Amino acid sequence: MAEPHQEEQQVYSISLNKELAKRLQTAGARAAMTPEAILEPALKQYLSREGPGDAVYLSAPAQAMMKGIYKETATIGEVKRHGDFGLGTFNDLDGEMVLLDGVAYQIRTDGQACVVGDEVQTPFACATFFNPASVEKIDWELDNQEFKAFLERIIPSENMFYGIRIDGTFSELKMWSVSKQPDHQPITEVRPTMFTFCDVDGTLAGFYTPKFIKALSMPGFHFHFLTGDRRHGGHLKEATPRDVRISLQFISRLELDLPTTFDFMTTDLV
Amino acid sequence: MAEPHQEEQQVYSISLNKELAKRLQTAGARAAMTPEAILEPALKQYLSREGPGDAVYLSAPAQAMMKGIYKETATIGEVKRHGDFGLGTFNDLDGEMVLLDGVAYQIRTDGQACVVGDEVQTPFACATFFNPASVEKIDWELDNQEFKAFLERIIPSENMFYGIRIDGTFSELKMWSVSKQPDHQPITEVRPTMFTFCDVDGTLAGFYTPKFIKALSMPGFHFHFLTGDRRHGGHLKEATPRDVRISLQFISRLELDLPTTFDFMTTDLV
Repeated sequence: MAEPHQEEQQVYSISLNKELAKRLQTAGARAAMTPEAILEPALKQYLSREGPGDAVYLSAPAQAMMKGIYKETATIGEVKRHGDFGLGTFNDLDGEMVLLDGVAYQIRTDGQACVVGDEVQTPFACATFFNPASVEKIDWELDNQEFKAFLERIIPSENMFYGIRIDGTFSELKMWSVSKQPDHQPITEVRPTMFTFCDVDGTLAGFYTPKFIKALSMPGFHFHFLTGDRRHGGHLKEATPRDVRISLQFISRLELDLPTTFDFMTTDLV
Repeated sequence: MAEPHQEEQQVYSISLNKELAKRLQTAGARAAMTPEAILEPALKQYLSREGPGDAVYLSAPAQAMMKGIYKETATIGEVKRHGDFGLGTFNDLDGEMVLLDGVAYQIRTDGQACVVGDEVQTPFACATFFNPASVEKIDWELDNQEFKAFLERIIPSENMFYGIRIDGTFSELKMWSVSKQPDHQPITEVRPTMFTFCDVDGTLAGFYTPKFIKALSMPGFHFHFLTGDRRHGGHLKEATPRDVRISLQFISRLELDLPTTFDFMTTDLV
C-alpha cells in the first residue's frame, strides 16, 4: 500500500502473546478492520484519558447491597482492571475488602487479613488507580472528631470524589468487620463485629463520595484499615491518628457497572 | 533483549502521525515506559471494553442542573466523543439538545431545530453510541398511555439503562422546549413553552434511567423529538405513535463526569 505521508509517520511495533493476538484478530474481523487498524483507535482512546487515576470505578451501585443483594458475578480480578486501590466486600458479605498497592485483602471478624485471589466474587467494590495530588503530614495526636474535621478541611468540594490513603501510626482505631450472611437480610439488620487496635501502624484506604449520589457508593468518608504487616485490618469506625501522612487524590469521573444478574434486575431499588 | 517465548508472540506494526507519536512518547516518558510498552495496555483496555454502545455517558449529574447550575464547560464536541445519540440542553437552558446519528441539534421554543457546532457548551448531556439489541414494530395507533405501557413492557428491568430510538409516524406529539434562563432560577420554576405536532414523521431519541439514581439523570423515560426533515423538534410530553419502529439498546455501564467549575464545587446538591 502506498503511504504518501510516510515522512510524517512514525512506525512502532508491538509484540503480542497468542491470546491477545487472537482477541485483536477477532475484534478486527468484527469491525471489518485489519488488526493494525485497530491499534490506532485503541491508542487514541488510551491517550485521550487523563491517565490512570482519573476515575472511581464501582462494580455495582451500593443501593443494591443495601437492599440485600449480597452476591454478584463481578470478581476481584475485574475490579483490579479498574484500580490498584480500593474498598469493598465479598459475596455473602464475607468480610471487608481492601485493595492496596494492587493486592486485595479479605478481613474477617477476627480482624485478620489475608490475600485473596482474582477469582473471588464481590457484590460491591470501589477502586481507582491511586495517584495523589497532595500530601499532608500530621505528627501530633488528633482525636476522632479532630481527625474528621481535618479531613473535611482538606477536601475542596463536597461534590467531588476523593481517594484518600493515610499511612502512619494510630493511637487507637475502632474497627469492625462482618461475617458471612447467608440469609441475605437487609444490610441495616446485619450486626458487625467490633474490635479495637491500639498503638498500631498501618494504612487507612478510603474514599469520599458526594452525599447526593449515596445510591451509588457509601456517602461521605469511608475507610478500611490494614496494619503495616498487612496481616490485620477492618472497617474503620473511629480513628485517633498520631503520626500520619494523608495523601489525597481528586477524582472527577465515575464509572459504574450495573450488574446483570436476575436478583439485581428484579429488586426494587428505589 | 532476549525474547524466550518469541515463537508464541505475534508482531504487529503501527504507523502513527507526528502528533499521535508525540503524545505516545510523552505518555511513555511520564510512565517511565517505552512507547512500544504502552501499546499493549492500550490495546488490552480497548479490547476489554464490550465495544462502543456499552455505556451511558453523562457530562454532569442532573442534580446540579436541578439546583440551578445552568452553565458548564463541557462542550458538544466532548459529548460526541462519548456517543452519537443523546439528549441534553445548552448553557442557560437555551433550548433542548438532540444528538442523532452524530449530529447535534438545538430546538428552541418555536419548535425549530438547527445544527449546533462542537464548541457550544452544555450544563447536562447524556449520550451513548447507539447500537440496539432489539427492534419492535408497531403499525397501529397507540394513545399516550398505551405507548407508555408498551415501553414499560419491553424493558426487562427497571434497574438498567436503555437507549431508545423510535422512528416513524405519530398522530400527535405534545412537546415543549425552554428559552434562555439568564437568572438561573431553580429548574422547578422554569416555565417551558408547549406546542403540538400532528400527523408528523420523525424520530424520538431517548433513554430510560433507573429511578434509584435520579440524582444523575432524568429518571424513567426521557425523549426528545426531531422531525424527519430534522428541522423541528422538542422535548416530549405526550405521544400518540401510529406506525413506528422502536429500537432498544440495553446499557449496563455508566460514565459520569463531575464538573470542576466553582458553581458546581460550591453548590449544596443534597
